Formats: sequence, structure tokens, C-alpha cells
Amino acid sequence: MENNLFAQHAAMVDKHLEAIFEKITQTPEQLKKAMLYSITAGGKRIRPALMLEIYRVCGGDPADILSFACAVEMIHTYSLIHDDLPCMDNDDMRRGKPSNHIAFGESTALLAGDALLTLAFETATDLPASIDAVRALRAIQMLGHAAGMCGMVGGQVLDLDSEHKKISLDELAKIQSGKTVAMIRVNAQIACVLADASPKVTDLCCNYCEYLGRAFQIVDDILDVTGDAKQFGKPIGSDEKSDKNTYVTLLGLPGAQQMADTLTNQAVACARALPGGEQLAALAEQLGHRSF
Amino acid sequence: MENNLFAQHAAMVDKHLEAIFEKITQTPEQLKKAMLYSITAGGKRIRPALMLEIYRVCGGDPADILSFACAVEMIHTYSLIHDDLPCMDNDDMRRGKPSNHIAFGESTALLAGDALLTLAFETATDLPASIDAVRALRAIQMLGHAAGMCGMVGGQVLDLDSEHKKISLDELAKIQSGKTVAMIRVNAQIACVLADASPKVTDLCCNYCEYLGRAFQIVDDILDVTGDAKQFGKPIGSDEKSDKNTYVTLLGLPGAQQMADTLTNQAVACARALPGGEQLAALAEQLGHRSF
Repeated sequence: MENNLFAQHAAMVDKHLEAIFEKITQTPEQLKKAMLYSITAGGKRIRPALMLEIYRVCGGDPADILSFACAVEMIHTYSLIHDDLPCMDNDDMRRGKPSNHIAFGESTALLAGDALLTLAFETATDLPASIDAVRALRAIQMLGHAAGMCGMVGGQVLDLDSEHKKISLDELAKIQSGKTVAMIRVNAQIACVLADASPKVTDLCCNYCEYLGRAFQIVDDILDVTGDAKQFGKPIGSDEKSDKNTYVTLLGLPGAQQMADTLTNQAVACARALPGGEQLAALAEQLGHRSF
Repeated sequence: MENNLFAQHAAMVDKHLEAIFEKITQTPEQLKKAMLYSITAGGKRIRPALMLEIYRVCGGDPADILSFACAVEMIHTYSLIHDDLPCMDNDDMRRGKPSNHIAFGESTALLAGDALLTLAFETATDLPASIDAVRALRAIQMLGHAAGMCGMVGGQVLDLDSEHKKISLDELAKIQSGKTVAMIRVNAQIACVLADASPKVTDLCCNYCEYLGRAFQIVDDILDVTGDAKQFGKPIGSDEKSDKNTYVTLLGLPGAQQMADTLTNQAVACARALPGGEQLAALAEQLGHRSF
């Protein structure tokens, strides 16, 4: 991302993550190392930056909810570690580096994922007194719901279940709604509940994230076919190799591109309807037309 | 457990867990089935019953914190599922039944564990308005801390790391402090913070759980050598087979038994110092002298 608000948000998240881990000393060195390996592996911090920017658009100070933003990034990171395990996608590379279990062994990778997921919730409770505690509890509930059996983990199960099967576009949308979109949309939900945003603003923010999340996944599917392995951080063609259903296998490249464009435009429209939403609109454009 | 308060607490936990899962419909059937398989596998609900009884001793109504009690049981259950995985202890049996990954496959078992851990935190936020939200946030923080890299997961890492090595009694105590004791002690921490207990009562409750948790683990080690496989729910001698360090391998059977007795007496003394702590004292006696 360029030198804009999002880059600033991402930098704040990086710094806060670093501070969190620096404070943790009562833990086995190897476990901390494995957790840090993945959390500092070059993630673009899109999810937490989205949360911070939406909170800013809602009139809040992003610095106040950094712990929640870091929690979302920890959950995203744990999901990648567990995804790559041999019993799951069995991927040896992630973001251009050996996967966590290649670098640290399977059991440490499993536990590093468990520890990141747990630390996420511990971290989310660490809020300034200016944040209403009842709202914070609701936000934690939303985080758990989006990450769990009705959200991301549920989507994972559906995804594994659909491998080597022919599925419909609706079924694919359902998988992605859990697997990817839930943990993108939840940033709007959390930011809006913590900022006490109006129902109208909340709807616009949630719809924005919904469209952006769906477009994001389709572009990911497209890049798996057309991308540059080095920039993309994982081997090109891995979806096809593992016989995965993607928007490209179901719609073809032009169809998938068209759908990504439509969703990107819908996200941009939501952002433009939000006072101060210019940066959100720009992010949707940028992610919708990204090449890695 | 006999027909006492603990049995009543355990029954309340069972009923509440059932109600929680009944309400969850937006999730893949197979995932829910795998989660329920382990959470209804005959666990004695010692951890949540401890929390409820301590809350009662502190003057609260156990029904008010059932969601927290269920959260602790979910975390305990997830840890058993992940523990049994091939890359961890590789145990085929648990509580006299095939382990989760034997029954549902490795990837579903991994995700069922992830989903239970996530659901635990979502569930813990679901409290009646009578519970102070700031205290609830602190309790969630304690739960995350005890379950995570400085508690249970950290202990797991140390435990795996110590296999096939000779370790000292202090090192074993450190492993068990994370692996087992943290998630027993946290029940006192949570009950006391939610009930706004005095520092003196909080100390007694936490020490009680600390002694009880340490005794519990030693008795577990003893039963691994002397127990009846059917009652114990897992093969006898599995620690020795996997070359694990236990209190029995380090102290011998009589030494381990003596240590368990001492710790049990210390737990009983803490409970007796608590007004209304008779049931806690009885539980410590019972667990310290259990045969399965």
C-alpha cells in the first residue's frame, strides 16, 4: 500500500504487535519464535487496517482500538498456519517463506496457531477505559462468531469437503462467505459497535466489507492462475493442482474478472456514501485491481 | 461424583452446553458433530464445577456464570482433541472411545478443536446484565492467559520438548504448572473476579486450585501405572511407552503418592479456611484418592 492512511494504520499495527510480544516473557522461546515467524512474515495488515480506518470514519481514534486490530491479525495468522498443515492444504510455502510447520515442525506449528488464536482474545480485552466495556464484550462476541464454526472455521470445513467435487456458484459463495469474507466483514462490525455508529453507517460499512471481501477472494483465485509466484508468495496453479473449486474454475477467467469488478464497484459505492470514506473507496479500487 | 453440589453443578453445565449447541444451526453438520462427540464424551466437568462452586462460596449464584463455566470446558475439550492428534501424542483412544481424529479424520478434528476454542470465548461474553462488564473483560483476559502461550499451550510445548530427555522435578513442575494447573487455577481466578471476592478469599481459592491441580496431575500419573484401563479411559502404561517424564518416573510410586497426599491435604486446608468451603474440601479428598 502506498503512503496513505492505510499504510499508517498498518505501521501502527506492526508496532503494537511488536510491543505485545515484547511484554510476553513467561513462555517457551521456541513457541514465541514460531508465533513471531508467522505474524511478522510480511502480511499486509489489510484486516486490522480496515478496522482502524472504519473506526476513524465513524469518528473514533484508531489508537484506542489497536488491541482489537491486532487480535484480528492474530486470528488471520493462526488460520494460515493451521491451513498449511499437512492434514489440511499441506502447503510448504507461505508469503514466499517456508510454512510454519516446515520451519518449526508440525507440533510447534499447531501449538503456535492455538496460541495465536488464544492470545487474540486475551489481547482484545486490553482496552482503554474510554471504550465502553459492554460494547467491548459485544465486539469480542462478534470476533468469536466470525472466526468460529459459523464463520471462518465453518467455511474451512465446507472448503475441505468440496475438494474433488463439482459444486455450484452458490455453494462456492457460501464457502467463501465463511472462509474469507467473515473475517473481513467483522472489522466493520467491531469498529461500528465500538464507535457506537448509527445503523445506517453500520450497514454501509458492513456492506462495504462484504463486497470488498468477496472481490478480494475472487482476485486471489485469479492471481493463482495469472500471478507471479514470487510476488504472490506461493506457487502459481496450486488451486488447480489440488483440484479446488474457485471462481476461475467455475466462471472462467473473464467471468471471474467481471464479477470481481462488479463487487469492487459496489464496495466503492458504499465507501463513497460514507462521509470521509474516500480512503476506503481507494482501498477497494486498489485491492480489486491488485497484481499480488 | 456423588449426588452432591458438584454433581448438580456438572449437570447444569451439561444442560447449558446442550442448549448452546442446539442454538447453533449455521454451521456444517459434520463439524458440529465432531465438536459434540468430544464435548459429550463423558468428561467429569471438574473444571467448570469448580468454578461454579467457588462462585457459590463467594456468595454468587452459579447460574449467572454458566457461560464462563462452559467456556472452560470447551477449552479443556479442544486441548484434548489437539493433544491426541498424530503430530502430538498420537493417541487413538480417549475416555474409552476412539479419539476425535480417529472418528472424524485429522482435518476435521483439528478444526473441531479450533472451533471449540473460538466458541469458548464467544460463549464467555454471553453474561446476564447482573455481571459487571469490566469484571467480565478481566475474566476473559484471565481465561486467555491461562489457556495460552504462558499457560496451557506453553506447558504443552515444554512437555513435547522434554520427551526422551531426563528432566528435574522443578522442570516437571513447570511443565505441569502450564499444562494442567493453569486451567484448573483459572476457575478460582474467574469466579473470584466475577464475584468481587476479597483478596484473602481470592488467595485461598487460587491456592486451593493450585494444590488440587498439582495433586490431580500426580494422581493421573499414578493411575497411568496402576489404574484399570477401562475405568481410566485410556491404555495403562502409555506414559512409559512414550517415554514421558512423570511424577512416577521421577519420584517412584511411593514418592509420587506421598506428594499427592501432601498437596491434597494443603488443598483441603485452604478449603476449610473458606466459610462454606466443605464441598471444596470434600472434592479435594475425592480427587486426591480417586481410582479413575
